[in-house]
Amino acid sequence: MTSENSTKAMDPISKLTEYFREFPGIGPRQARRFVYFLLTRPSSYLEEMARLFLSIKQNIKICQSCFRFYQNGNGLVCPICTDPGRDQSQLMIVSRDVDFEAIEKSKFYSGVYFILGGTIPILDKEPEKKVRLNELLIRIKKGQFKEIILSLNANAEGEHTADFIRDYIKEKFPDTGLSISILGRGLSTGTELEYSDSDTIKNALKNRERV
Amino acid sequence: MTSENSTKAMDPISKLTEYFREFPGIGPRQARRFVYFLLTRPSSYLEEMARLFLSIKQNIKICQSCFRFYQNGNGLVCPICTDPGRDQSQLMIVSRDVDFEAIEKSKFYSGVYFILGGTIPILDKEPEKKVRLNELLIRIKKGQFKEIILSLNANAEGEHTADFIRDYIKEKFPDTGLSISILGRGLSTGTELEYSDSDTIKNALKNRERV
Amino acid sequence: MTSENSTKAMDPISKLTEYFREFPGIGPRQARRFVYFLLTRPSSYLEEMARLFLSIKQNIKICQSCFRFYQNGNGLVCPICTDPGRDQSQLMIVSRDVDFEAIEKSKFYSGVYFILGGTIPILDKEPEKKVRLNELLIRIKKGQFKEIILSLNANAEGEHTADFIRDYIKEKFPDTGLSISILGRGLSTGTELEYSDSDTIKNALKNRERV
Amino acid sequence: MTSENSTKAMDPISKLTEYFREFPGIGPRQARRFVYFLLTRPSSYLEEMARLFLSIKQNIKICQSCFRFYQNGNGLVCPICTDPGRDQSQLMIVSRDVDFEAIEKSKFYSGVYFILGGTIPILDKEPEKKVRLNELLIRIKKGQFKEIILSLNANAEGEHTADFIRDYIKEKFPDTGLSISILGRGLSTGTELEYSDSDTIKNALKNRERV
Repeated sequence: MTSENSTKAMDPISKLTEYFREFPGIGPRQARRFVYFLLTRPSSYLEEMARLFLSIKQNIKICQSCFRFYQNGNGLVCPICTDPGRDQSQLMIVSRDVDFEAIEKSKFYSGVYFILGGTIPILDKEPEKKVRLNELLIRIKKGQFKEIILSLNANAEGEHTADFIRDYIKEKFPDTGLSISILGRGLSTGTELEYSDSDTIKNALKNRERV
Repeated sequence: MTSENSTKAMDPISKLTEYFREFPGIGPRQARRFVYFLLTRPSSYLEEMARLFLSIKQNIKICQSCFRFYQNGNGLVCPICTDPGRDQSQLMIVSRDVDFEAIEKSKFYSGVYFILGGTIPILDKEPEKKVRLNELLIRIKKGQFKEIILSLNANAEGEHTADFIRDYIKEKFPDTGLSISILGRGLSTGTELEYSDSDTIKNALKNRERV
Repeated sequence: MTSENSTKAMDPISKLTEYFREFPGIGPRQARRFVYFLLTRPSSYLEEMARLFLSIKQNIKICQSCFRFYQNGNGLVCPICTDPGRDQSQLMIVSRDVDFEAIEKSKFYSGVYFILGGTIPILDKEPEKKVRLNELLIRIKKGQFKEIILSLNANAEGEHTADFIRDYIKEKFPDTGLSISILGRGLSTGTELEYSDSDTIKNALKNRERV
Repeated sequence: MTSENSTKAMDPISKLTEYFREFPGIGPRQARRFVYFLLTRPSSYLEEMARLFLSIKQNIKICQSCFRFYQNGNGLVCPICTDPGRDQSQLMIVSRDVDFEAIEKSKFYSGVYFILGGTIPILDKEPEKKVRLNELLIRIKKGQFKEIILSLNANAEGEHTADFIRDYIKEKFPDTGLSISILGRGLSTGTELEYSDSDTIKNALKNRERV
């Protein structure tokens, strides 16, 4: 059911409520609150939001190299992919733009990226429909990478995706000496030992650091 | 700080993120997720949302009698205020449209409404800036009410608002024999005695019902 | 599986942990924390707790009239049941001692009590095994009650129990003119209209109060 | 205020409630529920619990080498400290017994332990009153350790404690070539990149692992 079809006969308030319900994490009650909130805003506010809705995709491109969203760029490729200051021998594969942003915010990584566009559920039969596999192949072929870092979430689906991508790359590029790595496991900030699972403790011990 | 000023120099993604941050209950992270969600939608989706943003206020009026939002009406007054089937001698005063909706959904009230537009914080110095006091006066003068029901939340600010409005009405209409009532207190659905405060228990006992 | 059997061969720490796991609301981790906490206490602390475990039931009686726990009393009946200052024509029926305590804490009720000892699940086939039905009959026969107040939780099981007890009393005492009432429904402290169900709103309107 | 003093004049139910309130994570309401729960148990249950309260400390010793609680042992030292199968050149320092248990449960560590007995709050003036410093000195002097692993929680107080203990050991044993390490930081099980702080991401990148 798409919102376009189901909301045909509805009044604008109900229609907009239906649209907001599709937003990530928004239930019917909060969707309705959004609409009432908008009704109390001045018309200039609503007009500006409408303008932004119409313009974000015009100003936004998907980089044809790393497939992240970016803006204000010329050409087909984002500034990071073409930045001579970034290490073009390191490719980090992430699931989504929000992960890319979290990595960039840490200011610790200086290589380039590839956005998979999703994760692969365990037992999924058609992984090529969940993530950008062909685009990844092309990216790796075009690049001159020495290391690929799989930066996926440390949960079941993230690990499954990392395993799948690792096997896929190894199969497609068997003799390249390409190093593939995953993010280190250990204690994340705030972790208490008492509540940690055995895997986390094992990894924290294995990755222990001289001080 | 209005969003219009602070977002002047920003790119559309950041601007729209700032706008979503002003939505009720939305933090910076979810605001950003909203924008990324929109970027993955087809252009037709964004265009339809923009159209709704521009049209909701055109289709929506504020009733000049009860001050609730309504749509598709002719004239200045909403269908409920002019409905001969509603009891025009009963006026229910609520804080916001969402409260009006909750009451209507219960299908138990058949009088008319007045939307205050907010609540009055305790110790507030300028209540007339928080709620529609003059409009309320005019509404009561124009009507022929026998009873006014103050339907405010059963919390400190709601009770303060009810007390204030009651005193205000009594002062302005001293000799009218107008009955003013508040919603009954007692056990709301799901309440367990063990976790109830003494006020709730007192009221539940006082309002006990023969069965 | 009783704890006595399953913990036969265990060491004292594991045994005590098992016992704490049976406490209401306590999981395995917190049960273990309790034991470690006790290990760090001085021996005098543990001895005092052990003494209290042995003595609470010796000092505690179950009132043979209202069936609540009480202490330091002579005879078989609790001070409330024999208090000439309490209204002996009003009987409040509650589910458990914690409910009795919540009522007493409100300092609004001056009649006497009867503790059912539980609630009756919906569709339960043997209600007489869940609550003290025979004892209730005897209590009502012995008393000279004008009113019986059913103070059960405002949830499905509480309402079912109230309905059952009402029907049971009406069947057993058909011609006594005994008034049976339930606690009043309405807004409990803290309730917001926006999040209230229609039943709560109906009852709050029905029980509205002149101010 | 010790519970012994404050509960002198109280009845046993209130006394026991006060004792349960001192249990970790237990508020007044749950403490009271515990007591009512106990009142409904058979006497045999209460007697067995009392017996366990009296016996846990008799059966439990504090190891004079690692200071963990243990049971059923002869002598003054726990089985782990004297186990020839454990690596006696590795000493892991943990805060509490629950941390020791979490490590043992992971079945990855084969050295020996030292229980600090607590953590050192930031800005604390008397760390020697919070953790076993003298006992730690003696333990390290007696042992023949090559590595000391500081296994503290990955939060501010845990990190402060680790820093303090590291400095303390380095000062007291300046020329021993003793390796001191802390648990590795990175993604703990379940961590999502989007919600990770920059420190966690940095460490996860630094500790990345070839696959």
